[in-house]
Order: sequence, then C-alpha cells, then structure tokens
Amino acid sequence: MIVYGRNPVRVAIRGPRRVERVWATKNARRLPWLTDPGVPVEVVRAEDLEQRSGTPSHQGVCARVEPFRYADAQQLLDAPNALIVALDQVQDPQNLGSICRTAECAGAAGVVLPERRSATVTAAVCKASAGAVEHLSVAKVRNLVDFLRDAKSAGLWCYGADADAAAPYDSVAYSEGSVLVFGSEGRGLRPRVAAACDLLVSLPLFGRMESLSVTAAAAVLLYAAAAGRPPLDRRP
Amino acid sequence: MIVYGRNPVRVAIRGPRRVERVWATKNARRLPWLTDPGVPVEVVRAEDLEQRSGTPSHQGVCARVEPFRYADAQQLLDAPNALIVALDQVQDPQNLGSICRTAECAGAAGVVLPERRSATVTAAVCKASAGAVEHLSVAKVRNLVDFLRDAKSAGLWCYGADADAAAPYDSVAYSEGSVLVFGSEGRGLRPRVAAACDLLVSLPLFGRMESLSVTAAAAVLLYAAAAGRPPLDRRP
Repeated sequence: MIVYGRNPVRVAIRGPRRVERVWATKNARRLPWLTDPGVPVEVVRAEDLEQRSGTPSHQGVCARVEPFRYADAQQLLDAPNALIVALDQVQDPQNLGSICRTAECAGAAGVVLPERRSATVTAAVCKASAGAVEHLSVAKVRNLVDFLRDAKSAGLWCYGADADAAAPYDSVAYSEGSVLVFGSEGRGLRPRVAAACDLLVSLPLFGRMESLSVTAAAAVLLYAAAAGRPPLDRRP
Repeated sequence: MIVYGRNPVRVAIRGPRRVERVWATKNARRLPWLTDPGVPVEVVRAEDLEQRSGTPSHQGVCARVEPFRYADAQQLLDAPNALIVALDQVQDPQNLGSICRTAECAGAAGVVLPERRSATVTAAVCKASAGAVEHLSVAKVRNLVDFLRDAKSAGLWCYGADADAAAPYDSVAYSEGSVLVFGSEGRGLRPRVAAACDLLVSLPLFGRMESLSVTAAAAVLLYAAAAGRPPLDRRP
C-alpha cells in the first residue's frame, strides 16, 4: 500500500513494516530523517506524488509499504491487564486514525474493528493517526458481540460509551483489563453491542451540543482508564 | 458567510446568528429540521452546492449566514469561574473546529485565539465543530501573552499543556477559573506563552508516539478541568 505524509512515512520507516521505496519532492528529500533512511528514495515532482498517493495531502512524501498486518484479537486479550478499544462501525477514516493515535499514546494494547461496515487501516487512516498505527495492534473480528463475550471470559471488563448511560465515566474504577467500546458518530452503539458490555458509561455534556465527537470521547475515556492502571503497566 | 454540512446548518438555524437563505438537494430538503426552518430554502443540484460551498463535503445543504460574531475576550474573563481555552497559533481548521466542539461540550466559557497566525472561524471550522461554534464564544486577541496576564489579574489560573512539563495533568486541582493553553501541533507553546502560564502540565505518553494530537490533549484536559468544578457551574 502507499503511505503518504511526513509523520506516517517517517514512522513507517522506523516501524516493523517493510518499506519498499520512498518518493519525495526535492524539498522533502532534505528532511533529516530522509537523508539516510535505508530505503531507496526517488525525487519526483509534487504532481507525481499526488498521483501516487491519490491526494494533495502528501506533504511532499509517500512510500510503498507492505500491506498492514492486522493483529489477532485473541492475542490482544492475552496481554496482561490489556486496555483495548473496540469500535462499533466507525466508518470515518479520520476518526479511526485519530482514535488509533490516542490509543497508542494511552498505552492501549490495541484496537478492535468489526470486519464489516468499519473503516480499516488505509493510507488515510495512517495519515490521520500520524503513523501511530505502525506501533499499534489493530485486529478485525467477524462479530463484535462475540469478541466482547470472549473478552469477558478472559477476565476483562467491557465499558461502552453511551451518552444516555446513568454511570458517569469518572465515577468508575476501571478494571486493570478493560475494553472501551465506542459506536459510530451519530448513531452510537448498536443495541446488541451495548447489551454485551458490562457497564455503560456517559460523558457529561455541560453545553448545548448533543454529543462529543467519538474521537474526543475516546480521548477522555482512554486517559481516564489509563490513569487507574498500575504504574508498572504504563510503560511496558 | 456560507456554512455547509448538515450539523452546521441545523445548529446555525437554531442558533443566534441570522441565517439568510438555505440551499439543499432534493434529498436533503426532506430532513425533518428542514421542513419548516423559518428561512427560505431553495432546492438545487449537488454541483451547485459544491460551487457555493467550495467543497464536496456539503452533505447536501449549505446556508448563507451573517458573519461570525467574535466575543470580547475581557467579557470571557468576567464570567464567574470561567473555563477558557486559549490556542497559541493553532492553524488547522479541523483542529480548531474539533477543539471548539469539545470546549462547548465541556462547558467552557469560550475559546481565545491570537489575531495572527491562527485559524479563525471559517466555514470549515463550523463544519469541523459540528456547529458548536454557534453556541460558543470565540474571541480574538492581539497578543496571547497579554491576554494570559489579564486572565491572571482577573483571578484565573493559566495552565499550559507541555509534553515536557514535570506536573502530570491529573495531579492538579484545577482552579474554578481556569485558562487551558495549547500550542500548535508539532511546535507546541511558544516560549513566551509558556512562560506566561502559572503552571505547565503534561499528559503522559504510554506508547512510542512523541505526542498526542492537540485535539486529544484538549479533550483530556478540558474534561479533567471540568470535573473539578463546582456542580452548580456545570449547567448555567
């Protein structure tokens, strides 16, 4: 796949995926991390980059990278005291990318997506994550409800974000092993997914808007859950 | 100005700004909130909307709305126990819009921007805020350092977000009147702005990424500060 943008390409070069080739404008070629990247760099015109990446948002650089390697959801559950994000049909690549970046920063073990009706890890998601997906486990599951059931069997607690939930998110002592579940912007969690959670938690709205963005809700909840975890798990 | 997108136009129609005219596709015209909006609605083709709004992201609707009315920064400081966001040269309209939406949800009194080198409230910002800017005070100031000085004189505490700060954000009891200060993505706070804060706070990074997005950092800090405020101030 083609990855574009400065952060995504920079992180991809350092990350576990094989980077086959980089294309850069004359200007971008001078970036410090492109002086000796260990992969062939070809200097091209901006128009060529736009054509290769399919977007004008390439910031002067793109790379051909091996396909994204999805993680195994069961392995995520096996990580000790895992903090996991499960997204119920989040379809906007910007939102998926943002949430991946925040999840990586919050020390999450990974992000779980349903196979259908969900954004997957495309170049736009790599870009929106600022490259964070290179360091983050992302798993696809056939059925999110089954995954939550497996998570509960493995001893994790599943917390669903629901604007109408009675339990405020900050009244909860998050379990050391937690799955935070978010629905798509606008529609929220599907009823069966909400029912599969141990607890639904709400984020208070102090203004007139009807909801936070899913990316803001994820940031608040991820850091609330991360704060409650034992210090030793914070930096593995 | 032209506002586009379903949420932005819907919120604008209900909000304080005068909406002069709405253009919608035949499909969008049937949206419940467009059946009797109290302003003239003209049915047009999608291409016409794209031309009027200057983007394909119009979601079938756009409106001509009077110019955005900026708030007075001094008035923001006069609000009792105000929670204020100050952005130091945040130039990305998406980031400004996202932060405005989260600030509105967190009950912030307003957002303060420097006049120069900052995104201002454009149609793209209205869209990214999902219309939240209609319900939020946004002020422009000539000099952010002077504004922070004024805020401190008015009894507010200024907290700057700085990845390298010694004080973790969650070790702080936020003052009832607080200004949260964020720098631009990538460059952070300018030294003079950082020096004008009472305290710099950091958000922990538990993974390998070097920083949270400014929108995620703002969400985490806004809700941390909002949580510590007296209940009565939460919903004025």
